[in-house]
Amino acid sequence: MSVFTTVTQDQLSIWLKGYSIGTLIDLQGISSGIENTNYFVTTSHGKYILTLFEKLSFSELPYYLNFMMHLSSHGIPCPSPIKNLENGFLGSLNDKPASLVTYLPGSQIEHPVPEQCGHVGALLAKMHLSSLSFPEKMNNPRGPKWRESIAPKLIPLLPLEDANLLEKELQFQSLYQFKDLPQGVIHADLFRDNILFNNDTIGGVIDFYFACNDSLLYDLAIAANDWCMAKNGKFNDANLLSLLRAYHHIRPLTSGEKNIWPIMLRAGALRFWMSRLYDYHLPREGEITHAKNPAHFKQILQGHLLTQARLSEIWV
Amino acid sequence: MSVFTTVTQDQLSIWLKGYSIGTLIDLQGISSGIENTNYFVTTSHGKYILTLFEKLSFSELPYYLNFMMHLSSHGIPCPSPIKNLENGFLGSLNDKPASLVTYLPGSQIEHPVPEQCGHVGALLAKMHLSSLSFPEKMNNPRGPKWRESIAPKLIPLLPLEDANLLEKELQFQSLYQFKDLPQGVIHADLFRDNILFNNDTIGGVIDFYFACNDSLLYDLAIAANDWCMAKNGKFNDANLLSLLRAYHHIRPLTSGEKNIWPIMLRAGALRFWMSRLYDYHLPREGEITHAKNPAHFKQILQGHLLTQARLSEIWV
Repeated sequence: MSVFTTVTQDQLSIWLKGYSIGTLIDLQGISSGIENTNYFVTTSHGKYILTLFEKLSFSELPYYLNFMMHLSSHGIPCPSPIKNLENGFLGSLNDKPASLVTYLPGSQIEHPVPEQCGHVGALLAKMHLSSLSFPEKMNNPRGPKWRESIAPKLIPLLPLEDANLLEKELQFQSLYQFKDLPQGVIHADLFRDNILFNNDTIGGVIDFYFACNDSLLYDLAIAANDWCMAKNGKFNDANLLSLLRAYHHIRPLTSGEKNIWPIMLRAGALRFWMSRLYDYHLPREGEITHAKNPAHFKQILQGHLLTQARLSEIWV
Repeated sequence: MSVFTTVTQDQLSIWLKGYSIGTLIDLQGISSGIENTNYFVTTSHGKYILTLFEKLSFSELPYYLNFMMHLSSHGIPCPSPIKNLENGFLGSLNDKPASLVTYLPGSQIEHPVPEQCGHVGALLAKMHLSSLSFPEKMNNPRGPKWRESIAPKLIPLLPLEDANLLEKELQFQSLYQFKDLPQGVIHADLFRDNILFNNDTIGGVIDFYFACNDSLLYDLAIAANDWCMAKNGKFNDANLLSLLRAYHHIRPLTSGEKNIWPIMLRAGALRFWMSRLYDYHLPREGEITHAKNPAHFKQILQGHLLTQARLSEIWV
């Protein structure tokens, strides 16, 4: 249960007086989510999500909330933060930074089909185009510096095979900076659990708290590594084709992006393999552990390596 | 039919490439509205309203669109303007300023009941509280200066009784400036046709193109003169009580506002009597006339005068 900080009906009723969204009707804790406390809030105006930020600070949050507002104002179906009467997106509730955003209907898809991957690709391309005019900047907190900083802590804890694979891939990726590729604000975590579908149409994209400025193609690689992956770390080709085609139709990939694609897929797999290894081997103290299986992304990385090796043979 | 400027499917499909709201599915002209060209636009993302502004200019429009965005970001159910890829709310279509806003479901209510008037009062109070943090300013284009400027043109065209009533009321209202009352951004046209209801709940408030900075109480008077008016220019007391009570509960009226209320009701009636007289007697050339009956607001003004006279007798 991801309610780390309890909010009572009475507390929230008072807090809502600082907003223009009516009076409280219902308050329900949300069990998913591992970083923040989330509640469903129903008022006389409608349904909202209340988030109490357990780790992100008042100074870090405006980037994410303003970006959600930016995308929302471009017609991207994403949670739209609600301003309080002091004209801010952020308040304080039980000593935590807190915000309200609009509720989006829909549910996650476990086994996406090509048509759905196409919708995801199109949406991601529109998010990227819309992000180009967002003025604020945030470096990727899971970028190369982060990789280099946690690698020395991880490697001693891994079996030799994994340690070797990780060192080799880190060495390989350190040759690439991707700075010459198109840049913008990326979602950086566009997994299946962060897109809500209503039947076959997208109801919304959620969870922007990994958003940052980075290569747009990296975002597409992260999405492909989840939405288009069959078991055993191999792509479902129909899903992949559909994702890429829909994306490319709206934001055509540059030749530089096309060339680097196989390497970007590896970078995306490496990032999630490393963060999962870290959460698994070095959980933060007192943390309720929801550690996901790191082996999944090791397998994906190995799959990409195999594919690239085969392509190299053909092209030699 | 209020499509003064025709937009074709092909034109709009191209125009929509500058937005992130998907591809065009359907386009339907909207027959209501007398100032602008409006279309229902359905895209792969959802439903929107396209407006081509026939009179308002590129320099005037940001105030209205930014105010709608401001209210929307405060959770007020109103059309939310959609930004294009250049990060602006305004584009140009067939040489007219044009914008897209979100579509709100609901329909107008002809014969409001007290409960619905209560919802209107509560919404108006929330709009007013939210408006306090809106930074832009626009003087009321239908304020005292406008009254004084059109009066000399109107009076010679009116029957003697009407001319006398108008002159007397203008003289009376010129004694009041209302500048010491709470000020903010007002809707200034909150008639029954500008609130959409879904059964008994408000789906949205629309048509912000008369919004301006003025006394908040003036907005309440304009709403009362429409929502709470029975036939023969007399108030439906249950509706009025419900409107005022709900408003006051959220933004308590000051004693200054309470005292001036009867005079504000007259100011509201005068404004619409004059604009209707003007449209009736001095229609703009080539205008498709939708002139509304001026006598309705003359009757309302006379009703307020009678009520106030009776109160004065009691209080003497």
